[in-house]
Amino acid sequence: MTIQIITTGGTIDKIYFDALSEFQVGESPIASILHEANVTLDIPTQPLFRKDSLELTDADREAIRQAVIQSPARQILITHGTDTMAHTAEVLLSVADKTIVLTGAMQPARLRSTDAIFNVGFALAAVQTLPYGVYIAMNGRLFPAGTVKKNRHAGCFEDL
Amino acid sequence: MTIQIITTGGTIDKIYFDALSEFQVGESPIASILHEANVTLDIPTQPLFRKDSLELTDADREAIRQAVIQSPARQILITHGTDTMAHTAEVLLSVADKTIVLTGAMQPARLRSTDAIFNVGFALAAVQTLPYGVYIAMNGRLFPAGTVKKNRHAGCFEDL
Amino acid sequence: MTIQIITTGGTIDKIYFDALSEFQVGESPIASILHEANVTLDIPTQPLFRKDSLELTDADREAIRQAVIQSPARQILITHGTDTMAHTAEVLLSVADKTIVLTGAMQPARLRSTDAIFNVGFALAAVQTLPYGVYIAMNGRLFPAGTVKKNRHAGCFEDL
Amino acid sequence: MTIQIITTGGTIDKIYFDALSEFQVGESPIASILHEANVTLDIPTQPLFRKDSLELTDADREAIRQAVIQSPARQILITHGTDTMAHTAEVLLSVADKTIVLTGAMQPARLRSTDAIFNVGFALAAVQTLPYGVYIAMNGRLFPAGTVKKNRHAGCFEDL
Repeated sequence: MTIQIITTGGTIDKIYFDALSEFQVGESPIASILHEANVTLDIPTQPLFRKDSLELTDADREAIRQAVIQSPARQILITHGTDTMAHTAEVLLSVADKTIVLTGAMQPARLRSTDAIFNVGFALAAVQTLPYGVYIAMNGRLFPAGTVKKNRHAGCFEDL
Repeated sequence: MTIQIITTGGTIDKIYFDALSEFQVGESPIASILHEANVTLDIPTQPLFRKDSLELTDADREAIRQAVIQSPARQILITHGTDTMAHTAEVLLSVADKTIVLTGAMQPARLRSTDAIFNVGFALAAVQTLPYGVYIAMNGRLFPAGTVKKNRHAGCFEDL
Repeated sequence: MTIQIITTGGTIDKIYFDALSEFQVGESPIASILHEANVTLDIPTQPLFRKDSLELTDADREAIRQAVIQSPARQILITHGTDTMAHTAEVLLSVADKTIVLTGAMQPARLRSTDAIFNVGFALAAVQTLPYGVYIAMNGRLFPAGTVKKNRHAGCFEDL
Repeated sequence: MTIQIITTGGTIDKIYFDALSEFQVGESPIASILHEANVTLDIPTQPLFRKDSLELTDADREAIRQAVIQSPARQILITHGTDTMAHTAEVLLSVADKTIVLTGAMQPARLRSTDAIFNVGFALAAVQTLPYGVYIAMNGRLFPAGTVKKNRHAGCFEDL
C-alpha cells in the first residue's frame, strides 16, 4: 500500500438531513469522488471521525496522529474541517518519514457547486509528489504545516 | 508568472448545442473550475485550440510546443483531448527547463458526473510539485511522457 | 400578470455558510431554476420570508394570506418549508377565486441531488391547470389542502 | 394504472460516449429523475425508441400512436426530441379519451445545467390535470397540439 486516505469529518462530508432540518457530518464522499474521477489506483480509506473540526479534541488529534503512524502507507491524505486544519497539521509535524497532505472544503461535496472534488484531486497529486512532511492543500496552493492559517473572513487559506 | 494553463480542446471542453443537436468543442470551462474551487493563485489561461485531439495535426502540435516555449511560465498545465494526449506529450519532451502536465477528461466538464474537475485539480498540484519534464495526469496517476498510453477499451490511461 | 411566485423559506432555499459552519435559509433559487429551465413566461417573484417553516407564526401565515389576496395574479405558487406546509395550506383555504399551489423540497435546491427543481416545475404546471383552490404539490402528487400530511419518517407527503 | 411514461429519445436522453467521442441517445434518465424527486406514484415507463426526433419516420410515429392507444393508462407522458415534437403531437390528435403530454429538453438531463428535470416535473403535473387532448409542455408553458412550433433560433417553443 502506497497511499491511504483518512477522513475526519468537516464541511466536505456534510449531508442535509430533512428529518432534522439541518446539515450534519455524514458518510465521507471520498469513495464516490474517486469513482467518478476514474481513479485506477487502489486507495484504502479509513473513516476515523465525523466531526466538525471545531469539535476535535487533543485526544482526537492524537488519534489522527496514531492512525498516520500505524498506517503502512508512506503517503497519507487526510480530509478535515477547515477551521482547525492548520492546528492538526502542526500536531502531525512530529511524524517522521511520511508525506501527509490535509485538505477539505468550504462547501460540502454534495452541493452542486463545491470545491471538494477539485481539492481531493489536488491533494491526491500533492501526496504522491511532495517530499516527506506535512502540508495543507487548499485554494490551489500547497502550504507547509506551520506556515499557514485560515482567513475566515476571506474564506481561504493564506500564509502566516 | 509561475503557472500558465493552455487549453487545446478535447472532451473536457465539449458543449451540447441543441441547434445542431450535437456536441462540439466549446469555450474551455477552466475559468469556472478554478473559480468554483476558490483557487487564489492568479493563473493566466491561453485558449489555443478547440479541437478533438484526433484532429490535431503535426503543425498544431508544433504550435502547442511553441506556446509552451514562449510562455514566461516554468509550470505549464495543458488541457487536451485524451485520444492523442500521449503523442503530444512525447512531442513536448524536447522542451527544456519546464514542468509540463497534460490532463483532460473522459466526460465533459459540463456533465453532472465528470472527471474534469478532479483532473484539473490533480494536474494543478502536479505542475507545482514535479521536476522539469513532461507528464500526463489522469486517473489519479502521474505518468512521465513516453511511458503511457490510453486504453480506449478500458477508458483509462496505463503504463506502456 | 397571470402567475406570481411567493417564497417563504424552507429547505428549498437553504444555503451552506462556511463562516458559520452551518446551513441557513438564503436567497431563493427560484430565479435560477426558472432561467435554467428556459421558462419564457414572465413570472414575478416576491420573497416574503426566509424561515424554516417550523418558525412561521400565525402572524406570518396571515402575512402570506394577505400577500396572496393582494396579488393581482389569480395563480399563486408558494415555496414553503415542508414541516408546516399542510398547516399554511389550510389557512389559505379562506382565499377565494385563486389557484394556490404550495411546494418545497426535502433536499435544498443547491444540492447536486435535489427534488427542488422537479417540484418547482411540477407546481408551475399545476398552478396553471388546476381550478381555484389550495393544493400541495409534492412527490409527483397533487393534494387538496386539508387532505394531506407530511410523513416525517417516510420523508414524503401522504393522504390524511 | 393511471399514468404511463413512454420514452422515444431526443436530447433529453443524450449520453456522452468517450469511446466514440460523441454524444448519442442513451438509456432514458426518467427513472433516476423520478427517484431523485421522491415521486411516490408508481409510474411504469416504456422505452420505445432511442432516436433523435429528426430521425423519426412516419412508421415510428404510428408506433408511438399505437403504444398510446394500447396503454391501459388514460394519462400518457411522452419524452421526445424537440425538433419534431410538434409534428408528433399533431399525429396523436386522432387518439380519443386520453390526456397526452409531450416534453423533452434543450440540454441533456445528464448535464449539470439542464431543463430536463424541471420539464419532466412540469409535464407530470400537466398530464394529471389537463382534460383529454394532446399538449406540449415546454418552457414553463402548455401548448395544445396544433398551436405550437419550435423556434430553433430562439431555442424555445412558441405559438404558431
